[in-house]
Amino acid sequence: MTPEEKLAQHRGSIDNLDAALIHILAERFRITKAVGELKASHELPPSDPEREKKQVARLRSLSRESNLDPDFAEKLLNFIIAEVIQHHKQARK
Amino acid sequence: MTPEEKLAQHRGSIDNLDAALIHILAERFRITKAVGELKASHELPPSDPEREKKQVARLRSLSRESNLDPDFAEKLLNFIIAEVIQHHKQARK
Repeated sequence: MTPEEKLAQHRGSIDNLDAALIHILAERFRITKAVGELKASHELPPSDPEREKKQVARLRSLSRESNLDPDFAEKLLNFIIAEVIQHHKQARK
Repeated sequence: MTPEEKLAQHRGSIDNLDAALIHILAERFRITKAVGELKASHELPPSDPEREKKQVARLRSLSRESNLDPDFAEKLLNFIIAEVIQHHKQARK
């Protein structure tokens, strides 16, 4: 296999994984939307710092096991949570 | 089912999806590491703007199909690519 063929093979894998990421994120946003609606209609507290602390600790631990930088995983979770919060704000408008 | 039980159920789904995200990202970084090594050892160009343009267009299209905000998907891809570039820089040190 030439280096160019090997590169094309890797890129095919990256494209498959990226499609999986998009679909998982789409499903995650469907669920966080349902969580937002549930919390709003039952007057549950909008944020739960204890839950968030546990989520971060769990993702850092999973990242270490998978040889992924735990700081990157935490930054990514915060990036996604920021988007969730923005969705919730838009939903309340 | 009480709202609290429903919330716990949603959170279980979010935790499963987050674990999937971590594992997919870990695999994606394994592949981008191999791509970096391949490019370095065969003197292939380190970046490929055409490829990146295609990746963005494809992810935006997949996002629209999945009802995910395409701008968010593009921001996320850039966030991941920035991490990949940092890995490659660290590998060259």
